[in-house]
Amino acid sequence: MMAGNQSATSARIWRNARLATLAEAATGLGIVENGAIAARDGRIVFAGPEADMPQALRDGADLIDCEGRWITPGLIDCHTHLVHAGNRANEFEMRLAGATYEEVARAGGGIVSSVKALRAASQSDLVAQTLPRLDALVSEGVTTVEVKSGYGLDLDNEAKSLRAARHLAELRPVTVRTTFLGAHALPPEANGDKDAYIDLVAGPMLDRIAAEGLADAVDGFCEGIAFSTAQITRVFDAARAKGLPVKLHADQLSNLGGAALAAHYGALSADHLEYTDDAGAAAMAAAGTVAVILPGAFYFIRETKKPPVELFRRHGVRMAVATDNNPGTSPLTSLLLTMNMAATLFAMTVEECLAGTTREAARALGLRTETGTLEKGKWADLAIWDIESPAELVYRMGFNPLHARIWRGK
Amino acid sequence: MMAGNQSATSARIWRNARLATLAEAATGLGIVENGAIAARDGRIVFAGPEADMPQALRDGADLIDCEGRWITPGLIDCHTHLVHAGNRANEFEMRLAGATYEEVARAGGGIVSSVKALRAASQSDLVAQTLPRLDALVSEGVTTVEVKSGYGLDLDNEAKSLRAARHLAELRPVTVRTTFLGAHALPPEANGDKDAYIDLVAGPMLDRIAAEGLADAVDGFCEGIAFSTAQITRVFDAARAKGLPVKLHADQLSNLGGAALAAHYGALSADHLEYTDDAGAAAMAAAGTVAVILPGAFYFIRETKKPPVELFRRHGVRMAVATDNNPGTSPLTSLLLTMNMAATLFAMTVEECLAGTTREAARALGLRTETGTLEKGKWADLAIWDIESPAELVYRMGFNPLHARIWRGK
Ligand SMILES: [Zn+2]
Ligand SMILES: [Zn+2]
Repeated sequence: MMAGNQSATSARIWRNARLATLAEAATGLGIVENGAIAARDGRIVFAGPEADMPQALRDGADLIDCEGRWITPGLIDCHTHLVHAGNRANEFEMRLAGATYEEVARAGGGIVSSVKALRAASQSDLVAQTLPRLDALVSEGVTTVEVKSGYGLDLDNEAKSLRAARHLAELRPVTVRTTFLGAHALPPEANGDKDAYIDLVAGPMLDRIAAEGLADAVDGFCEGIAFSTAQITRVFDAARAKGLPVKLHADQLSNLGGAALAAHYGALSADHLEYTDDAGAAAMAAAGTVAVILPGAFYFIRETKKPPVELFRRHGVRMAVATDNNPGTSPLTSLLLTMNMAATLFAMTVEECLAGTTREAARALGLRTETGTLEKGKWADLAIWDIESPAELVYRMGFNPLHARIWRGK
Repeated sequence: MMAGNQSATSARIWRNARLATLAEAATGLGIVENGAIAARDGRIVFAGPEADMPQALRDGADLIDCEGRWITPGLIDCHTHLVHAGNRANEFEMRLAGATYEEVARAGGGIVSSVKALRAASQSDLVAQTLPRLDALVSEGVTTVEVKSGYGLDLDNEAKSLRAARHLAELRPVTVRTTFLGAHALPPEANGDKDAYIDLVAGPMLDRIAAEGLADAVDGFCEGIAFSTAQITRVFDAARAKGLPVKLHADQLSNLGGAALAAHYGALSADHLEYTDDAGAAAMAAAGTVAVILPGAFYFIRETKKPPVELFRRHGVRMAVATDNNPGTSPLTSLLLTMNMAATLFAMTVEECLAGTTREAARALGLRTETGTLEKGKWADLAIWDIESPAELVYRMGFNPLHARIWRGK
């Protein structure tokens, strides 16, 4: 018989570790030498110096010796289009061989080809095609991933995409947050009528998706080649009426005032932001809207205008970093490499990159009370690394030093 | 009892495959649909359409059904500094936090820190530190890797580095080619006397390294911050006297005429080449010197001057692509990502990237008769991929679609 008034569930303890807690109140990475983390029922019950850990937690605990390894929060990829069908390698090859965008379009390329492929795929096809991408992220310590729809562009296919995304969480030990991105592009059958399509998105599509609980948030693409601020406003008003938080692909190729619009709606995040100006950054800071930096697309489509990282720092805008995994502009499935790109291409610091894939990424998903830091009460989502210093996670390219990954305590 | 005059060794056959043979005489990637490869005693005895495979090869053969997968030659990383000690993540972090090169140097950063760490490491330490990097390359289908010395900078430590490199080939199923790069940088104890140090490199150091058979080639770094053409000439003359082929880090940061110098010595390759001019390219073409393109360093140190790929095409200079893995300017251990960088940053085509990591990389190592293509007589070095088209190997970022890797038939 076990003694005393011990909990029915004993703790799991990772000891002899170095922690980068990324705790809200800590400075820098929130480093704890000689640290330990205890978890019970999937939540962190202690994170700090091993010497400070209550003795009671050790009773009957499953003790794991980390042999001095580093532990960070499990990584969070807060902006992906992971559920898609096919790939656009042919288009990439054509462009390298000198084809113009027009020639690629004539050959059936562009987002239309992804819409066609997604519509042709069954939900189980979609899941099967997505799993290797998810597994690539997970193999690098990702414990939470956001997945957007946006290649279905009609009710059934958007719902299919979001159901496929939800199903991923049943197949792998990972938290999946889904985002309805009906306002991603105009489907071919809309014949150029953007307003009529937005009627569908903000009306019957959102109605059904909200009713079925398929989306945790609503996103849009605010750009000359996509939708205007007036059209996005209608989508956001509809989302607000359903109680769904919003996000926005904003200011990627031009400044339409997307960042300010997102902030006006108290968006969880505004994403891309290459052309965001001072007013946009100020509005984001005031609203607590996270700036999601997406260096993969910048790199892949050879943009030259960088997001105004220094402006975000000056205004105190929180920054997250994400893969933007998608077949057209960012076929990127490494969040470690994404951090390296944010540092190399945008001069984000090691601390910004690591906070941007943990604490701030959680904030961008509305999960800041659940994950993203090593703090009591949060899910025990951990990444344990074979590294000498956290900077190595940002510095290396194409190398995975993950030793172990823990999702909700397991 | 087995019938007839069959060979003692039966063949291994990979059938039901799509081949990108990269054969010398073929156009493009040398694609063979419905292809098969047969190997015996580690060499390819047949590669081509399955229907053309001699029936006799099938007798007693070990048949592997590739289920329609693609087979390429095993990948070749023809320029690395894989054997090194420690890393320079701290230096990377300092620079991102705004430190100047001077401040980094005062804090003990730069190549001097790598020299210090290598000298302090034992040969078995070095091997242990290098294996995870080698394993990262191998996991992506690399079957041949070049490894340079150049952080020892004295006889014992250069020899230790090359022995460590040779030892890697005993621990993993991979071909290792070693290159003596004594003329990489000036060691601290040389007190700025480059000529005196070159006396050592071209004299006692090369003598012993050649006598022990530790190097397959000799390399140098021809640059204002390293060695002059006159100094490199002395190293090359000494190498020639020993019958060792040469290579050169040339024209990376300025045009000192390194490419032309390399060509003059019939170098296997000249590497980097950002500043190579028309005369340099013409000399390389005439000499058959391969241009080794190293996008990792270009990206990591944020260079803006690109190698003159179009000039190389015009002159018919063969181009290889390599990681340049090193702790200071290219902590890159993915040859797939390197191809993506060559395409994205330098507009190299899919065919150039794939030839550059197979056939042309073999040529840059003096191994063109042994590996790098799927042709009869070559080592059976194969990479089998879960892809729909070869372009996917270049298009994706941070994704490894390797299904299986075969080194010398196994
Ligand atoms: Zn996106
Ligand atoms: Zn090099």
